[in-house]
Amino acid sequence: MTSGAFLAIDWGTTNRRVYRIEEGMVAATERDALGVTAVGDFAGELVAIRARFGDLPVLMAGMVGSTIGWREAAYVAAPAGLDDLGDHLLRIDERTAIVPGVSFVDGRRGDVMRGEEVQLLGAVAGGLAPAEAMLVQPGTHCKWVEMTGGRIARFTTAMTGELFGLVRSHGILAAQLSADVALGDAFLEGAREGARRDLTASLFGIRAAKLLGLRDDADAASFASGLIIGADVAARVAAHEFDTAYILADPMLGGLYAAAVEANGRTATIVDSHAAFVAGITRLGAFLS
Amino acid sequence: MTSGAFLAIDWGTTNRRVYRIEEGMVAATERDALGVTAVGDFAGELVAIRARFGDLPVLMAGMVGSTIGWREAAYVAAPAGLDDLGDHLLRIDERTAIVPGVSFVDGRRGDVMRGEEVQLLGAVAGGLAPAEAMLVQPGTHCKWVEMTGGRIARFTTAMTGELFGLVRSHGILAAQLSADVALGDAFLEGAREGARRDLTASLFGIRAAKLLGLRDDADAASFASGLIIGADVAARVAAHEFDTAYILADPMLGGLYAAAVEANGRTATIVDSHAAFVAGITRLGAFLS
Repeated sequence: MTSGAFLAIDWGTTNRRVYRIEEGMVAATERDALGVTAVGDFAGELVAIRARFGDLPVLMAGMVGSTIGWREAAYVAAPAGLDDLGDHLLRIDERTAIVPGVSFVDGRRGDVMRGEEVQLLGAVAGGLAPAEAMLVQPGTHCKWVEMTGGRIARFTTAMTGELFGLVRSHGILAAQLSADVALGDAFLEGAREGARRDLTASLFGIRAAKLLGLRDDADAASFASGLIIGADVAARVAAHEFDTAYILADPMLGGLYAAAVEANGRTATIVDSHAAFVAGITRLGAFLS
Repeated sequence: MTSGAFLAIDWGTTNRRVYRIEEGMVAATERDALGVTAVGDFAGELVAIRARFGDLPVLMAGMVGSTIGWREAAYVAAPAGLDDLGDHLLRIDERTAIVPGVSFVDGRRGDVMRGEEVQLLGAVAGGLAPAEAMLVQPGTHCKWVEMTGGRIARFTTAMTGELFGLVRSHGILAAQLSADVALGDAFLEGAREGARRDLTASLFGIRAAKLLGLRDDADAASFASGLIIGADVAARVAAHEFDTAYILADPMLGGLYAAAVEANGRTATIVDSHAAFVAGITRLGAFLS
């Protein structure tokens, strides 16, 4: 066994990525569609993974630690850093563990993450983002995270991606929103409209614009994306002090968020989310033994 | 033929209501599920309606005048009163016509209504609401209408009911939102949260509250309804000067909106929307002959 080597599994609802980590570097990796909802026998899966990637200690993160996963790993309350997560690994056996998620409660309002914490804390630990920063992880459920001293201090989840999916797949706007989203004038016009933070009215405006011929309907999907992302960004800008948003995403989605952030007068930097995950999980791997 | 008698049909997407109006009063009425999407032969339907209700002139309103209806009646641009609508009836034949909808354009933003205009203008014509007022017609697509001099001056449509339906039927919150909505503490807490106008984050909060045990999940549907209605009301209160909102709705939905309006520091009056429709269509009936 290579010194310090282990297998990391980013095990989400619908996808899974396995890494063999050796001396802090990715020696092998593979992605498949065997998310937790597609798996029944987690122990059996692990036998198969070890057969393919090496008979090594395993550290898992993501929905595998939720009620729909293998075993539920209780949330660690924010503020939370890598050391807090490492101290609260859920042990399956002496060489197999799950990283817990993070919760944040402010009076009657609460928030949770599970899986994102490794990327977010890894971005700081790996020097990809400052220890005092606003980090953003866009997606179905977009995370906005205030880092303080390199720890997750507080965060807000916005279901931007899910809302876009809902209006695109169901309801009165669906027929208008089938085109691909592009970063251009329609997206930016949507982001400005979204900054009014009047989503239910702005969404109906997409229907009205079609009936009245106010916008090329081919642009409706980009406008709608700008609208929903723009409303999310504007709410965060209104509630938080930050100059730069560090965005953990692929270039396409990251580019859309960066444009909406800049339309709201802040700057944006796109961070390599894959490198951030590796930086985070490698540090957590030290807690395995 | 009774002097001034005619048949009025409020013909929407999924429902239809027929009235025989005699001397400004409803002599007979009947509601069924034969909305425009369920009807192919509109002329044949009218023969059947006249056979049942009397061989009288017919005035129709609603989606029957849209692209998915019998014939498309072009929108009348706001500001628009009953006389403007009456002057622009779409004539099918010398004793059969459709009331046009109303459009409003402000720069690149536009809005439309079709069917609601009869109720809204009827409310003022029938003395149920003042000639200078904010009228609200909640529903799938909630209309907020500024009346000036008894005419529709400008208006905003918010897809509040549709958004609630989307999150209730699809996506991550659906399983939590099956209970009936009630006007109580959870609704009012939702309305206050909605006033923050941060819908995508507040909606995710419903999920987090369940995972963290912050709210009795039996209250989630009422909270979500309060959230979405509260965000709509707060956006309108921020954009418009008005003391009282005149709400055209049944007591249940009207009561929810009234509570949200009052939570935002304005007063609310519920108007009998059925009486408002009759007042409006009766006045428009004078333009038939």
